[in-house]
Amino acid sequence: MRHPAVPTGTQRPGTRRPGGRTARTRAAVRDAVLTGLAEHGYPGLTVEYVAERSGVHKTTLYRRWGGVEELVADALDLAGEDAWTPPDTGGLEGDLRALAREVCDSFSDPEMAAAPTAFIAAAFQSERAADALRAFYAERFARCETVVERAVARGEAPAGTDAGAVVRAVSAPLFLRLFVTREPVHAALADQSAAATVAAVRAGAFMPPTGTGQATDGPSPAPTRTPDP
Amino acid sequence: MRHPAVPTGTQRPGTRRPGGRTARTRAAVRDAVLTGLAEHGYPGLTVEYVAERSGVHKTTLYRRWGGVEELVADALDLAGEDAWTPPDTGGLEGDLRALAREVCDSFSDPEMAAAPTAFIAAAFQSERAADALRAFYAERFARCETVVERAVARGEAPAGTDAGAVVRAVSAPLFLRLFVTREPVHAALADQSAAATVAAVRAGAFMPPTGTGQATDGPSPAPTRTPDP
Repeated sequence: MRHPAVPTGTQRPGTRRPGGRTARTRAAVRDAVLTGLAEHGYPGLTVEYVAERSGVHKTTLYRRWGGVEELVADALDLAGEDAWTPPDTGGLEGDLRALAREVCDSFSDPEMAAAPTAFIAAAFQSERAADALRAFYAERFARCETVVERAVARGEAPAGTDAGAVVRAVSAPLFLRLFVTREPVHAALADQSAAATVAAVRAGAFMPPTGTGQATDGPSPAPTRTPDP
Repeated sequence: MRHPAVPTGTQRPGTRRPGGRTARTRAAVRDAVLTGLAEHGYPGLTVEYVAERSGVHKTTLYRRWGGVEELVADALDLAGEDAWTPPDTGGLEGDLRALAREVCDSFSDPEMAAAPTAFIAAAFQSERAADALRAFYAERFARCETVVERAVARGEAPAGTDAGAVVRAVSAPLFLRLFVTREPVHAALADQSAAATVAAVRAGAFMPPTGTGQATDGPSPAPTRTPDP
């Protein structure tokens, strides 16, 4: 997981003052990047725009971030530093349904959707943005895995279930429709995905590969998560 | 499904000569668009580039297509006019595994992946490209539904299974990793997705909404495909 204290990766004076000038500057720059991405998309975002919008001088932006790619990547790093936790409804299907509905709801609201959509688009054009997006979702989905761990503890899912694959599987049909097939998403689709994922979990379809197709003597003590590196 | 005989949507002389000059021109233009998208991406694609690469005069491109958006959309329409059929392995899990592996293989090969990736990226920046992508995948996934229909006929899946949702669900975890979370995909992941989807189908999780959460008197004779409009 990456949470660089400063965007350039070098420790600078002031970095460790929480809520101080550095943090405020970074947040102002992040807000300007999000607005710029939402308004113009990645191809239209410029350091000049971020400078004007944030009130941070252009030379400061170049010196401390480097350029547009680094500005976008840092905004994404900062977005990952929130206190979000996955839903806890008391049951696996309820939790997965809530997770899927959250994807559905946040991308159905044009205002909420603008920045994350722009990040996903930017990753097509910038390796640096793609790296930041990968780190963002790796950490976000790692948080989601709690949902599956709790289900295992409750006996709702077999021990050794590939939690990372499960939380991705329940969200995937929504992301597919939003960003590939460009179809509408809605709550019924989220619920269908949750029902399908729970059925697959119960059937043991998310066990590590040794458990799905080949004979095995029992659950491995430390399952290899091959399908989800 | 859209297969406009001419890109501008207006019938013109020569349109109906299969394999004639019009078809050859359109194919040459399509090839130039694909190369341009693969090399420069949507933001870098220009009518000038397509003219130079295809040997078709710029004014012809403007007159018959309109501009870059229409050129990209038409290239996608043409891509949808292939003879591709879904795999037929004799069983649902084999068919879904082959479908998922095909997604995996085609996007893992940089040369094969370049054009479809560029189309998916272009849809973020152009409504016209998004419409064409939607039509492309709607038609492509409709072809895939045969796989589920055959499974129903063999008794491997409940009658009334939402075929469109099933074929999307099996591909979705791969598309999610390729274009959102930016994680690697591989055959084991395709197989895991196929196993999960088959388990969900068998459990009846892909029945229309009335069958998933509420009591029902039996399968509807003409199931409403609400989750997958």
